[in-house]
Amino acid sequence: MSTAGQVIRCKAAVAWEPRKPLSIEDVEVAPPKVHEVRVKIVATGVCHTDREYLYEAGKGMKFRPFPLVLGHEAAGIVESVGPEVTKFSPGDKVIPLFLPQCGECKRCHSPKTNQCRKNWANTQVGVLADGTSRISCKGQQVYQFLGVSSFSQYTVVPDTSLAKIRSDAPLNKVCLLGCGVSTGYGAVLNTGKVEKDSSCAVFGLGAVGLAAVMGCKVAGATRIIGVDINTAKFEKAKEFGATECVDPKKFSKPIQEVLVEMTDGGVDYALECVGSPGVMSAALESTVDAWGTCVIVGWTETEAMSVVVENILIGRTLKGTYFGGWKSVEDVPKLVDDYMNKKLKLDEFITNNLPLDQINVAFDDMKSGNGIRTVISLYPEEASGYS
Amino acid sequence: MSTAGQVIRCKAAVAWEPRKPLSIEDVEVAPPKVHEVRVKIVATGVCHTDREYLYEAGKGMKFRPFPLVLGHEAAGIVESVGPEVTKFSPGDKVIPLFLPQCGECKRCHSPKTNQCRKNWANTQVGVLADGTSRISCKGQQVYQFLGVSSFSQYTVVPDTSLAKIRSDAPLNKVCLLGCGVSTGYGAVLNTGKVEKDSSCAVFGLGAVGLAAVMGCKVAGATRIIGVDINTAKFEKAKEFGATECVDPKKFSKPIQEVLVEMTDGGVDYALECVGSPGVMSAALESTVDAWGTCVIVGWTETEAMSVVVENILIGRTLKGTYFGGWKSVEDVPKLVDDYMNKKLKLDEFITNNLPLDQINVAFDDMKSGNGIRTVISLYPEEASGYS
Repeated sequence: MSTAGQVIRCKAAVAWEPRKPLSIEDVEVAPPKVHEVRVKIVATGVCHTDREYLYEAGKGMKFRPFPLVLGHEAAGIVESVGPEVTKFSPGDKVIPLFLPQCGECKRCHSPKTNQCRKNWANTQVGVLADGTSRISCKGQQVYQFLGVSSFSQYTVVPDTSLAKIRSDAPLNKVCLLGCGVSTGYGAVLNTGKVEKDSSCAVFGLGAVGLAAVMGCKVAGATRIIGVDINTAKFEKAKEFGATECVDPKKFSKPIQEVLVEMTDGGVDYALECVGSPGVMSAALESTVDAWGTCVIVGWTETEAMSVVVENILIGRTLKGTYFGGWKSVEDVPKLVDDYMNKKLKLDEFITNNLPLDQINVAFDDMKSGNGIRTVISLYPEEASGYS
Repeated sequence: MSTAGQVIRCKAAVAWEPRKPLSIEDVEVAPPKVHEVRVKIVATGVCHTDREYLYEAGKGMKFRPFPLVLGHEAAGIVESVGPEVTKFSPGDKVIPLFLPQCGECKRCHSPKTNQCRKNWANTQVGVLADGTSRISCKGQQVYQFLGVSSFSQYTVVPDTSLAKIRSDAPLNKVCLLGCGVSTGYGAVLNTGKVEKDSSCAVFGLGAVGLAAVMGCKVAGATRIIGVDINTAKFEKAKEFGATECVDPKKFSKPIQEVLVEMTDGGVDYALECVGSPGVMSAALESTVDAWGTCVIVGWTETEAMSVVVENILIGRTLKGTYFGGWKSVEDVPKLVDDYMNKKLKLDEFITNNLPLDQINVAFDDMKSGNGIRTVISLYPEEASGYS
């Protein structure tokens, strides 16, 4: 029986207020409006950004309106489409996108950026084009995190914030291409443009950092140094391509000095995948002065990093990446192809699978540094059917 | 009568101690040692860096040992060469270089940098390869600023820190290619790689900034916005190619916000030619978020700039330039050619000519913002003979 055109009542993890665990609730998801698509979310990763907007709001992260359904790294199936939607049909496998690609604006036409701003002002504050959310709970509007909200069995997204992917893609794996893996991998290939035979340091060996390590290996870097204070991550990092790993806590001197010594002058590329201003400065200073490039990948919104001017003057470059520089609608399906063709790892990032009602466990594990990525099944009883 | 092999006694402006005017003294200049060249300095520009190392030592600038002969933007004639010098002969017209190009190291072989480090550790502290200076005064060693010291009628430089230029070049003009003009011009062409039809903002309209404006025009930028709090510079900036000029003091909001509004989102490129951390942050923030590039050109050694991380994450790039990215020995002669072929302006930068004994006037004018560049004649009585 089709649910098109009707309000869908389903389960979602609602964040009622900052710094409180998520609460599993029955929510109502309205039908899609013009140029919108309603998606049955099958699987979603749990990203540090989700946790930080909840627990660190105001400390490095801007405040977002509550109540809120978090989640932005997901995969699902189109349930129904709103008026004027031409590129999606019910049954299509899709990945919702927190970064749109309208394909029509100056930015979409430029090869220099992926920063489309379609519906941006609205999705950044949790609503869609008409200024409202499609999710409600107990009669109250619930905001959609980054316009996505994948911690819900159903959600509605703009048709310019959705990538159609191949029908044989396992949703409980490719969901990771909705944020973390694409971000770290693209930071290396698109933003840093890491060259063959170069040396790289990757700061932070979570999912984003491991994806960066993977990117460095694909780019042909000969030396890939993983940097983390959690040595439990080192073995995994080496599986992904790290040639060596260092723990800053093991040295009495700053880690940038250690790296400069290890590489006789500094690495060619540093990737900061932590989101800490202090680590960002260290990453920049770990690069070789004459041509080193430091790419900031870790997210922090309200903080500033300190850049000793001479460190830049002498030839270094500081860049940032957002969603790894990928043009979201057109590149995510290609990344899915790369995974299906075994050019890109995804399974190896997943260290836990949990049902939606245990999502707070995933947050706790992330905080304590256990594992890499937890994938949440929105329909655990059907999960095998979608893998 | 040849002076080769003999100590030359001549005039120089000696900086005996920080924050005191220069003193015209008789100095002794020793003959060149192995791989060194003694140069008769005919003309020298007076650069902000000269003044700052004298008057701002410890405040943004590292302390350099005193007594010191400043000056690093000059042109002259080879007087004699030391053992094993093969590329220079007495009578060659030359430009001394504070940045070497040995042609043999990994950096010289890389197209990514001009940061050769030949003799670097020594020249940065005022001595040549053997750990001593060739200049002395009253029996005391006088340090050579950046290994050059062009505020002296004669100096000795390493043969890897000297560019041989065409014999018809007017030394009292091309001296400006030893630092300021090359730096600003190259920052645009080599470091920023400013593209045709782009928009640019140049912060600071001194010699370096005007050279950046000139570079933007040569690169084909359609909008070149000069930014300075000294509106007396605006007319000259427009002669060099600025399409409009703005005075930050005229606005109640920060200048970066003004520029973002003026350009509907921000300039494609910003060039910071002031050397002030606050201006650097403003320059970065004046660029368009998706692909803006900010090049730091102004020099400050000990200070740090603050970079709001989100400003980088969203697609901006921060780069620095040193001597405009030019490979010094090979590129300076080409810049002289460009001047002789009228592709590059130099005469228009020169707003005053003074003899060596009035060099403190040049410093005073620089501090008060009068004029652009003063060129000092080391032999005013012969000046016409070398122009």
